[in-house]
Amino acid sequence: MTKQLKSEIVAVGTELLLGQIANTNAQWLSEKLALQGINIYHHTVVGDNLQRIKKVFEQAQNRSDIILVTGGLGPTEDDLTREAFQLMSNLEMTEHAPSMKKIKNYFSRHNQNMTPNNSRQARVFKGSKVLFNRVGMAPGMIVKHESNTWIFLPGVPGEMKDIVTHDVLPFLQEETGNKELIKSLVLKFIGIGESALEHELKSLIQSQQNPTIAPLAQNNGILLRLTAKGESEKYVDELLDKTKSQILAKVGDYFFGENDQTIEQEVVRLLQEQNKKIAAAESLTGGMFTNKLISVNGASSVCPGGIVSYDKKVKQNILGVAPETIKNKGTVSEECAIEMAQNVSQKLDSDIGISFTGVAGPDRVEGKPVGTVYIALISKDGYQLVQRFEFMGNRNIIRNRATLKGLEIIFNFLKS
Amino acid sequence: MTKQLKSEIVAVGTELLLGQIANTNAQWLSEKLALQGINIYHHTVVGDNLQRIKKVFEQAQNRSDIILVTGGLGPTEDDLTREAFQLMSNLEMTEHAPSMKKIKNYFSRHNQNMTPNNSRQARVFKGSKVLFNRVGMAPGMIVKHESNTWIFLPGVPGEMKDIVTHDVLPFLQEETGNKELIKSLVLKFIGIGESALEHELKSLIQSQQNPTIAPLAQNNGILLRLTAKGESEKYVDELLDKTKSQILAKVGDYFFGENDQTIEQEVVRLLQEQNKKIAAAESLTGGMFTNKLISVNGASSVCPGGIVSYDKKVKQNILGVAPETIKNKGTVSEECAIEMAQNVSQKLDSDIGISFTGVAGPDRVEGKPVGTVYIALISKDGYQLVQRFEFMGNRNIIRNRATLKGLEIIFNFLKS
Repeated sequence: MTKQLKSEIVAVGTELLLGQIANTNAQWLSEKLALQGINIYHHTVVGDNLQRIKKVFEQAQNRSDIILVTGGLGPTEDDLTREAFQLMSNLEMTEHAPSMKKIKNYFSRHNQNMTPNNSRQARVFKGSKVLFNRVGMAPGMIVKHESNTWIFLPGVPGEMKDIVTHDVLPFLQEETGNKELIKSLVLKFIGIGESALEHELKSLIQSQQNPTIAPLAQNNGILLRLTAKGESEKYVDELLDKTKSQILAKVGDYFFGENDQTIEQEVVRLLQEQNKKIAAAESLTGGMFTNKLISVNGASSVCPGGIVSYDKKVKQNILGVAPETIKNKGTVSEECAIEMAQNVSQKLDSDIGISFTGVAGPDRVEGKPVGTVYIALISKDGYQLVQRFEFMGNRNIIRNRATLKGLEIIFNFLKS
Repeated sequence: MTKQLKSEIVAVGTELLLGQIANTNAQWLSEKLALQGINIYHHTVVGDNLQRIKKVFEQAQNRSDIILVTGGLGPTEDDLTREAFQLMSNLEMTEHAPSMKKIKNYFSRHNQNMTPNNSRQARVFKGSKVLFNRVGMAPGMIVKHESNTWIFLPGVPGEMKDIVTHDVLPFLQEETGNKELIKSLVLKFIGIGESALEHELKSLIQSQQNPTIAPLAQNNGILLRLTAKGESEKYVDELLDKTKSQILAKVGDYFFGENDQTIEQEVVRLLQEQNKKIAAAESLTGGMFTNKLISVNGASSVCPGGIVSYDKKVKQNILGVAPETIKNKGTVSEECAIEMAQNVSQKLDSDIGISFTGVAGPDRVEGKPVGTVYIALISKDGYQLVQRFEFMGNRNIIRNRATLKGLEIIFNFLKS
């Protein structure tokens, strides 16, 4: 039978509180445990201080069934995880012979004197299940104390991961009796805001337990993470497929890919499929759009290159925008955007031309406020679109948003 | 008088407990606060659950003076930070008019319907100091409640950082009256490896306590972080200056800037100082080099634009590389690189031309192995340089390294 256990992760180390490193151990552990159906309710970071560690342990003892502790098992006086747990539990410690042997061997192999503090690392609690450290010195431990299961792990990520993969995950699977498989699927959207997406899917998100549906905003669009549980992979895949269909029935217009797929990859794929080439004339985006396309493997078949016409003269002399257009309408205008897109497409012999002109800041240009951007799209078969946008943010946020909007526009064009 | 205040960071968000993201906000905040001499004793992560957030808040209230809370201020039903704090404090909420106006403007400008949940983001506690969000929607807040100072911040890193830099750090400096000053100075280098730098500075790094000297390798070069302590800014600055001089006496040839300065900023600055313009012809880098320059404020005076000549035809037709060069030497050749640099400089009327041509992979080009890159630099006054490189890594690592090497080459040219 499956028990619903509460668990938490405690990281010990002042270096985390000083911001010298991020708590990536907690992230990695959480991801692995979530996939085993173990619910993590808290992460805590505490510094190398005996009393504070002890308090955090007492709290964990009261609110969680399984407590994973990373760090504080090393050789120095700062390493106080064992001491704090002993203070709380009154459990006795003993020396773990295989670990001690490994430590001694290491020092003799390296012709170094073993300073006495190194033997500290070999101490384990009596009656604990010792988790041998293949990668480093200090072993991990599983300690059953009162009604809790404590899992002590080294803080060095490589050592922690090795022990968890080999010993802790199998132990927890047995402990929890979990036969359940958990699988995630990320659906990616562009051209719709987080709140609008959630609004569209509100009833589905609220009514749905398996898979769960969690929205997440990212720099390059909006994600939905579906997480399904079940006893077989086939069953879980069916659940994910069914929910995906329900979601796409509502917001499929904005869907562009799954998991690690990027919008530029999808644009390159669609261009390849349709045997079309694109070229961009970029002003404020300065090559960012073309660079995104060319970052994709196989872009050479769909993007011959582009022209960065940041200066007015380059717009005129290289791209061939009419001087009257620039004089009468300005470079930040619909008309200039259209000519830029038309001309870059002609000059580079592409099926589609796209252009970006606008004001990235910090100063206004031609009286237009910072954030004003025109994007034009021209296709050989006569399609023409030009749009004005007002993006918020600093220079590089505006340039990023313009580039992303350009990818959205070409994506929508290719899909339609 | 300096108060020794205890502080902690609470991050709200189930995505952290599922391991979908790491708590990099806590790291960034901890680093900034440490530099202001503010001691952080705990980080806590709690999921999007009203009662559990409330409990974590109660605990923070009892053990800390200053509590920084990130996340849970967004528009969705999962965003419960305000609700949990209200439940604990019984403070009233009110609508922050400037934030509401910003939200409404955003939706009307984008011709999107504003769903009702979006107005949730504009709610602030009565009597709080509102921290306007320049980058996104939800404002932050500083709330004094009982003997605690609560600082609520959005979870999106860019928004959080902007608010903290502009508003929170100055507020905390005033609040704490901290006089034990800790100051960091980051020195940046290009064109030297981490171990070579460390080797040159070994005795200095080992003998030195105040400031400490810590080397750090990053994507865009090598950093040295000096951290000095003292009772006055003048004293600390003198310590940092003295050590900086000692370091530059040894490795000054590779030094390009301090703190947040980037190599592209330094290149733009040198170009401005020397009143020179640069244009790039880019093949495998696909616009990345030009984009880096144009990302810098004020780039318009030194970079008129560039040509991305990814396809052979664009090299011939737009850039005007001689067909014989391409036929006899190939596009991945010294000769092609030189013509590309010469021609882009002529066509865009710049003082300096730089070019990138090579093999980003995954496949060989013209029999040349993946990673082969030629970079040429031509200046109006007759200087000419062309170099061949073999970069390791995948497609985008190679493209990045080529771009960075281009910046190094132009930096060295401008300095000499």
